[in-house]
Amino acid sequence: MTGITLSDLAGRLGMLLRGEDREVTGVNTLSAAGPDQVSFLANPRYVDQLAGTRAAAVICQERFADRVATALISADPYLDFARTLQLFARPQGCLEGVSGQAFIHGEARVDPSATVYPFAFVGARAEIGAGARVFPHAYVGEDCRVGRDSVLYPGAVCMAGTILGDRVVVGPGSVLGADGFGFAGPGAEKIPQVGVVVVEDDVEIGANTCIDRAALDTTRVGQGSKLDNLVQIGHNVTLGPGCMLVAQVGVSGSTTVGSGVVMAGQVGLAGHLRIGDGVTIGPKSGVAKDIEAGRTVGGIPAMDRGAYLRYLALAPKLPDMARRMRALEKEVERLKALAGQGADQGAPEQGDKDEQ
Amino acid sequence: MTGITLSDLAGRLGMLLRGEDREVTGVNTLSAAGPDQVSFLANPRYVDQLAGTRAAAVICQERFADRVATALISADPYLDFARTLQLFARPQGCLEGVSGQAFIHGEARVDPSATVYPFAFVGARAEIGAGARVFPHAYVGEDCRVGRDSVLYPGAVCMAGTILGDRVVVGPGSVLGADGFGFAGPGAEKIPQVGVVVVEDDVEIGANTCIDRAALDTTRVGQGSKLDNLVQIGHNVTLGPGCMLVAQVGVSGSTTVGSGVVMAGQVGLAGHLRIGDGVTIGPKSGVAKDIEAGRTVGGIPAMDRGAYLRYLALAPKLPDMARRMRALEKEVERLKALAGQGADQGAPEQGDKDEQ
Amino acid sequence: MTGITLSDLAGRLGMLLRGEDREVTGVNTLSAAGPDQVSFLANPRYVDQLAGTRAAAVICQERFADRVATALISADPYLDFARTLQLFARPQGCLEGVSGQAFIHGEARVDPSATVYPFAFVGARAEIGAGARVFPHAYVGEDCRVGRDSVLYPGAVCMAGTILGDRVVVGPGSVLGADGFGFAGPGAEKIPQVGVVVVEDDVEIGANTCIDRAALDTTRVGQGSKLDNLVQIGHNVTLGPGCMLVAQVGVSGSTTVGSGVVMAGQVGLAGHLRIGDGVTIGPKSGVAKDIEAGRTVGGIPAMDRGAYLRYLALAPKLPDMARRMRALEKEVERLKALAGQGADQGAPEQGDKDEQ
Repeated sequence: MTGITLSDLAGRLGMLLRGEDREVTGVNTLSAAGPDQVSFLANPRYVDQLAGTRAAAVICQERFADRVATALISADPYLDFARTLQLFARPQGCLEGVSGQAFIHGEARVDPSATVYPFAFVGARAEIGAGARVFPHAYVGEDCRVGRDSVLYPGAVCMAGTILGDRVVVGPGSVLGADGFGFAGPGAEKIPQVGVVVVEDDVEIGANTCIDRAALDTTRVGQGSKLDNLVQIGHNVTLGPGCMLVAQVGVSGSTTVGSGVVMAGQVGLAGHLRIGDGVTIGPKSGVAKDIEAGRTVGGIPAMDRGAYLRYLALAPKLPDMARRMRALEKEVERLKALAGQGADQGAPEQGDKDEQ
Repeated sequence: MTGITLSDLAGRLGMLLRGEDREVTGVNTLSAAGPDQVSFLANPRYVDQLAGTRAAAVICQERFADRVATALISADPYLDFARTLQLFARPQGCLEGVSGQAFIHGEARVDPSATVYPFAFVGARAEIGAGARVFPHAYVGEDCRVGRDSVLYPGAVCMAGTILGDRVVVGPGSVLGADGFGFAGPGAEKIPQVGVVVVEDDVEIGANTCIDRAALDTTRVGQGSKLDNLVQIGHNVTLGPGCMLVAQVGVSGSTTVGSGVVMAGQVGLAGHLRIGDGVTIGPKSGVAKDIEAGRTVGGIPAMDRGAYLRYLALAPKLPDMARRMRALEKEVERLKALAGQGADQGAPEQGDKDEQ
Repeated sequence: MTGITLSDLAGRLGMLLRGEDREVTGVNTLSAAGPDQVSFLANPRYVDQLAGTRAAAVICQERFADRVATALISADPYLDFARTLQLFARPQGCLEGVSGQAFIHGEARVDPSATVYPFAFVGARAEIGAGARVFPHAYVGEDCRVGRDSVLYPGAVCMAGTILGDRVVVGPGSVLGADGFGFAGPGAEKIPQVGVVVVEDDVEIGANTCIDRAALDTTRVGQGSKLDNLVQIGHNVTLGPGCMLVAQVGVSGSTTVGSGVVMAGQVGLAGHLRIGDGVTIGPKSGVAKDIEAGRTVGGIPAMDRGAYLRYLALAPKLPDMARRMRALEKEVERLKALAGQGADQGAPEQGDKDEQ
């Protein structure tokens, strides 16, 4: 899309236009937007930038509408900003159709509406759905299925048997279906990993993330879950729908994660755990035990948010506590000495004295 | 392999068949196995599933054999499960031989029994051994050597001069022999990394793992070691034989790790350390000092297991400790005041009084 | 370069040759160098190796020059070692020119002096500068610019619109310009990431590192910064010039990092922070607050270096502190009891006694 009028934009997204209509061609921040761009106010700390913005219009709550020449009044400005961007965003890529420089196995099935770039590899019995796009250097192993309108970005890898639902996005360099980490006995004999990876509809996976195939059965990523970059999902993990895993998270094998679970960056989970629905895990946490639904935890070991915030405040004071502990010990020793003196005076001996 | 009789299986692996012989075609969990599949009991917590399993036979210890219709009695059920899977597992991939769509440099040497997929790149003077398999988008730089029956999965990279032993597996997207992180002086001038990476026989490397080439000399991964996904091995590191490094571990440059060392997920090691044979390092640990052979450590900083378990129990109680510390301080102040009072009564002054 | 005389080497780098001139062909460690190689002494702990080295000459400070037969006296031996290596190091790769087996879009512009390997992909309107080298399986998306003498190693990915300055190095498997992690509303609707990544001159990026494109505007890596392997840079981050980020560091979105900042391995930064010039952050630290220029911090939460060193010393003593706390509490209870007794004796009641 190259241009749209503000009134058309308001109509499409259910916003209210207050001010002059005109055509806009994009979206930018309050400070960077030009007169043919829309901007937005989602975070009140930027409210001072309203006065100086050159944007054609600002998507904002009604209470801020008076502070700009032209407002697009919205109940949820951040969401409407996202949806406005969706109208303008161009997809990545510069080719269409199935390239003759791709490798398509004779037994593969590629929908005629799909795009397969040069140097992509599609293995035996793999299926590429309608509207799907497979970028250069992507690898689709034998017996994989790539759903409708799904995208494999450059260098994305689906090892044999990986199943992707519809509208799934796999970022550049991410690897789905590599062997889980399983060895047995003193000689570390390989346990062949004969299960698969299933990624449900509307999942988005970032760059250089790894999701291992199951030893037996299935490693599963639930509908609509979003995984950031450099995330590790071990074999036989189940992630429920609507989870958000930030960069560099690691989930060990056979752990089951409920729906709507949020893990901040660099979190690590042990294996064979059960994480309940709606759990939030703070950054860098180390989780070694099950977590009940709805809890917010943080730290190593992971503890409830309140306890962790107190821990964070106190950890830097550990040296101070140690110093105070030594001071108390000295003081108590002194008091004991004094009390011992007092005891000599006030106890049996004194009684003895009394008998003198 | 499509089918094998239970008696044949028992014979090959040295198990004892108790029950009816029949043909089986695969392996699955107790709950998921069908009547043509073998299952296993390795972890006693699944013992209750024995009653309901539909598996043709269960690999288990003798003490559990009476609880199923057909048992394959094994001294080490987990190992025999692994070996049974090895019989059934199909290797990844759907092509054989050297593809005309691969790039093989004129000075490279590829064994006629090797497989090189379309879009693989084999550089000058590189050698690909007998039975080796080089998947699409793998890069074998000049002067590399890939040993017999080794596998480079899709997108695996061996930069110039990397040496892989026999039966080595390099997972998708892993990078061996990229430059170590070395810069000198205030302008951060590049220190060229002119050493190599040597990976010994039977090593398995997961997906998107990085092993840097040495500045000078060699970065080495010892025989039979297993590295999981997203692991970082710095330049001039030596890993001994039989190590197990779980996902997202980082080992800094010039550290020397003994044999049979286990590092759990997200562990980090500083550079120039010596880690003894048989050391085990718990998840998320930060290691900044040498560790003697045989020790089990955890935490940041890494401490002995016993101390770390006590630390883990106590860290959440730090706020409670701080509160108790304040209470003690108040109490001791009160006692001091009282003792001061007492001292006034019981010391010289009281003596003075006595003299009155 | 195959050989150079010591006198020529001394002249080029401004060192002083003391001893016999001869030709040398490389650089190695004191213990491994042969008689046609130069070695160096940068770290005094290796001083004992001077006596036994077979090196043709040793780059060292003047005070050590008497201890070897031939010395190259240098004010900064480590830097001159780096520069000597620069003279000998051979670049990676075995081809030159633009391969007919690469994909170059009809609207791309590739300088005739550039090298593009087989299976590299260069998209529409992309520009590859003079002397640049694009290795196999590298992806240069539409509208990207790769500056003069820059290198994209195998599998490196630049998504659409990524701008690389001159002499930039992108390691194997690294991904620049993948979508930032941005979703809005309860349904986690995609916020299209329409900004770009700009990498300034002389930046070097390791293997399998990720730098996300901005939501709007720019994610920027400043001139001469060096990023190690498996690093994560979120959308809209700005790194100043001359930063050093060690492996597995993660910087969350919209954080601004000053010049000359050093982050050790596995550090994590929250989003929307400001990190001042010259800050150093110790390994595995978790940073959730702004840091003023010049500070050195460590720990979770990040604290000043001195406090963190004391914390590191004390954390393993937490169990001991807890034990001492219990002992103190008991002691104080006992003292209270005694004091209570003493109080019974020394207070009004005693007065009462006196009155008897």
